[in-house]
Amino acid sequence: MKPKILAIRKGILEDNDRLAYTLRTKFIKNNVFVINVVSSPGSGKTELLIVLIKQLIAKGFKVSAVVGDLETDNDAKRLFASGADTYQINTNGNCHLDARMIEKSLKNILWQNSNILFIENVGNLVCPASYDLGENIRMVVLSTTEGEDKPLKYPTMFNSADVCVISKMDLADAVEFDEKTAVQNVHNVSPDIKLFKTSAKKDLGIRELLDSIVSLIPSK
Amino acid sequence: MKPKILAIRKGILEDNDRLAYTLRTKFIKNNVFVINVVSSPGSGKTELLIVLIKQLIAKGFKVSAVVGDLETDNDAKRLFASGADTYQINTNGNCHLDARMIEKSLKNILWQNSNILFIENVGNLVCPASYDLGENIRMVVLSTTEGEDKPLKYPTMFNSADVCVISKMDLADAVEFDEKTAVQNVHNVSPDIKLFKTSAKKDLGIRELLDSIVSLIPSK
Repeated sequence: MKPKILAIRKGILEDNDRLAYTLRTKFIKNNVFVINVVSSPGSGKTELLIVLIKQLIAKGFKVSAVVGDLETDNDAKRLFASGADTYQINTNGNCHLDARMIEKSLKNILWQNSNILFIENVGNLVCPASYDLGENIRMVVLSTTEGEDKPLKYPTMFNSADVCVISKMDLADAVEFDEKTAVQNVHNVSPDIKLFKTSAKKDLGIRELLDSIVSLIPSK
Repeated sequence: MKPKILAIRKGILEDNDRLAYTLRTKFIKNNVFVINVVSSPGSGKTELLIVLIKQLIAKGFKVSAVVGDLETDNDAKRLFASGADTYQINTNGNCHLDARMIEKSLKNILWQNSNILFIENVGNLVCPASYDLGENIRMVVLSTTEGEDKPLKYPTMFNSADVCVISKMDLADAVEFDEKTAVQNVHNVSPDIKLFKTSAKKDLGIRELLDSIVSLIPSK
């Protein structure tokens, strides 16, 4: 039975990759820069995106967002309130977003008008790693409260990401976060990843991250 | 194609449930109390288990543990050092433990001699919820640093758990943890769950949790 399951799973991933390729082509043709934001639950993805969205809008960029959650639309409401044209994808218990869900969700937002589209994935450091959503870059958020060893324990996620944001730096002392070891672990599994250290709450490191994102946004 | 996949997935879960039933029978016959510990990455499962294991051993109980991780054996080493006969299951990228993995792992530890067997699941609030491991109780750990909304966003996990431990209470103030809302959210998705608030670091609430566990351990 096992090879059959593996074959079907491979098929699902191949189907997903094909659709992701189509989506990526669409995004590039429309000059929309797409960031797939992944992390474990409670790393502060939404909080970080709110700060980024507000500052991007203040700079004159148009921002849209899709948010994946198993249940609730709390995060979508928060991103919408920060000014992004937002759509909530309810995954009905599914542990990750896939390209098909993204394709469907695009009908509900003015993504073509946007300069940047954020995809906030389901909080899960395992499954979303395997699903290309047609994004331009993948950004993994690791909070100081999760511990330094997470890159080693979830290498696929960190290895498949282009950018790593270490969030909640304001709590680093309180949780005795060993920054040197964490950075080393990130680079061990993903040597070329771009690394930023932020606190959305205390406005630390946000400017550097924002500048880096802005430098990648194509003009319309 | 979808119904086929769903049928196979249903088959996998049914196979798992059958094996979990066999395991549960074995555990009960051998008077071994089994706790399946689930949470998102970095909630402090290992830290909590170390404290519990040390105190259980001090009380004269024999403890064994199996630990599931995608990569690394850091957690297994830490549990072993605390005195439990421990075996590391490397899931090779799989996002959850299943009953088959547990069955295999038992060959490597003296579980029959134990009074209690801890299963530390892969850090993931989604997938492990669907896999019965033959445990007597499921304990979900929610850290104060993850935010109050997690029970609403991952209802299956909280609903399938018998015990919920709110961990890292020593950080509650620093992260502005809204305890009342968190407790309300836990009870909304899981009205009968037993709830404990702990800090493994500051030895808060450990005694209550330990007493509750000890009261459930059968005599040999």
